[in-house]
Amino acid sequence: MPVRIVLSRTSHPGNIGAAARAMKTMGFRELVLVAPRHFPHADAVAMAAGAADVLEEARVVQTLQEALADATLAVGFTARGRDLSHAPAALRDLSAEILAASGEGVVALLFGNETSGLSNDELLRCQRLAHIPANPAYSSLNLAAAVQVACYELATGAGTLELPAAGSGEAATGEDLEGFFAHLESSVHEAGYVDPGNPGRFMERMRRLFARSGLERSEVRVLRGMLAAFEKKMRR
Amino acid sequence: MPVRIVLSRTSHPGNIGAAARAMKTMGFRELVLVAPRHFPHADAVAMAAGAADVLEEARVVQTLQEALADATLAVGFTARGRDLSHAPAALRDLSAEILAASGEGVVALLFGNETSGLSNDELLRCQRLAHIPANPAYSSLNLAAAVQVACYELATGAGTLELPAAGSGEAATGEDLEGFFAHLESSVHEAGYVDPGNPGRFMERMRRLFARSGLERSEVRVLRGMLAAFEKKMRR
Repeated sequence: MPVRIVLSRTSHPGNIGAAARAMKTMGFRELVLVAPRHFPHADAVAMAAGAADVLEEARVVQTLQEALADATLAVGFTARGRDLSHAPAALRDLSAEILAASGEGVVALLFGNETSGLSNDELLRCQRLAHIPANPAYSSLNLAAAVQVACYELATGAGTLELPAAGSGEAATGEDLEGFFAHLESSVHEAGYVDPGNPGRFMERMRRLFARSGLERSEVRVLRGMLAAFEKKMRR
Repeated sequence: MPVRIVLSRTSHPGNIGAAARAMKTMGFRELVLVAPRHFPHADAVAMAAGAADVLEEARVVQTLQEALADATLAVGFTARGRDLSHAPAALRDLSAEILAASGEGVVALLFGNETSGLSNDELLRCQRLAHIPANPAYSSLNLAAAVQVACYELATGAGTLELPAAGSGEAATGEDLEGFFAHLESSVHEAGYVDPGNPGRFMERMRRLFARSGLERSEVRVLRGMLAAFEKKMRR
C-alpha cells in the first residue's frame, strides 16, 4: 500500500512532525512537503516523537505539480462543501478505490494549509476529493488529526479489501495530465474559443470533467492527437 | 449518541485541549477528566482552538470510579497486547456494539496516561478493551490522535455526520449526448484525425471516457462551443 502523503504550504512545522507521527503509526512512510513555511525545524522533530525517520526521508518540493508528477491518483482532502462539480465523497466511501489504485500506481493524499485548506487550484489537480465527515458546527480537524484519520481508514480498510476487477488501461500520471491540459489550453486559445487575456472558467471546468472520468495514458494520447489534428488544419 | 470521553491521569494539559478539539469535530461533547496533572490550564485552551466550550463543560473527578459511576458500558483503549483476561478487539469491530449500547445508557471511552496508558486496575473496570490497529514497529498514537480516531470511527459508524452540500449541475440527456458525439465525430473527420471510411475505435473510446465522467448540460454546451471554434478556424 504505497500511499504518499502530501502536505501543501504547511505553516507550522510542529504540524508536519505530528503528521509524520500519525503516518508512521499506521504504517505509512512517504511524506512530500510542498513549500513548507519552515522545514526542517526543531518543532517538527519534537512533535514527530519516534517518527523522526519519516521526517528525515521527507522530500521537499516547491510546487504541487512536482509532488504529483508521477501520481496516478491524487486525492484532495477538503472540509468545505464548495461549488465543485466533483463533490467530495466521505473518506470511507473512497477507501476501496484508493487502496485498489495504490496497488497499480502512486496514490497521493493531499492536505492543504492549516488555515485556508487546499486552494481551488490545488483542488483542481486532484482526481478525487475526500471529506472526513465532521460536526457541521465545528469541522476544524487539526492537520495531523486529519492525516491520522485518513491513514487509519486506509490501513483498516486494507485488512478487508476486496479488489475490484482489474482496470483496463494504465492510468495517466500527473505529468501526462498537465501536458494534456496545457495542450488543450493552447488549442482553444488558437481557435479563439478562449481569450488568454480573459480566460473565464473553461480550463477549470475541463479539469473537473476529466477528474471525474479519470484518464488513461492511451486516452491522453488520443485526445492530444485530436488536438494536434485540429491545430494542423487551423494553421493550413 | 451520548458517548462520554474519559481521560485518566493526563500529564500534559495541551493534550486535553487537543482531545477536546478532536471530540467536538466529531460531534462529541462530554469530557470527564480523572485526576489530570494540570487543569484548567492555558495550554489546554490554546490546543482546544474552537472547542473551548467542551473544556469549560468538562467535569473533573478524582477517581475513575466516579467517572464511570453511571456508565453501562466502559471501553478502555489500549495499545498493548498485555496479559489481559479479555483481549482487546479492533475498534472497528466494537463500534456497532458501542453504538447500540449508547442508545440505551451511558457509554464511556477511557484513555489512559500519555506515557503509561491505562493501568491494570483501570483496565479491569472496563467491560470491553479496544485497540486501534497500528504499525507494530511504532504504535504510539498521540492521545488526541487516539481520541480523534475513536470518535471518527463511532461517528462514521453512526452515520450522524453530514457531507457538505456540493453544487452539481443538471445532467445531460441522451439527446444532448448524441448531439455532442455527432458533433465531435464530424469535427474529427473534418480535421482529418479520423477517416470516415476507416474510423477505428476513436468514437467508442470517447463514449467510454465521457460515460465514466458523466456530463452536465452546461459541459456539453462548452465542449460543443469549443468544437465549433475549431471548425470555424479550420474553414477560414
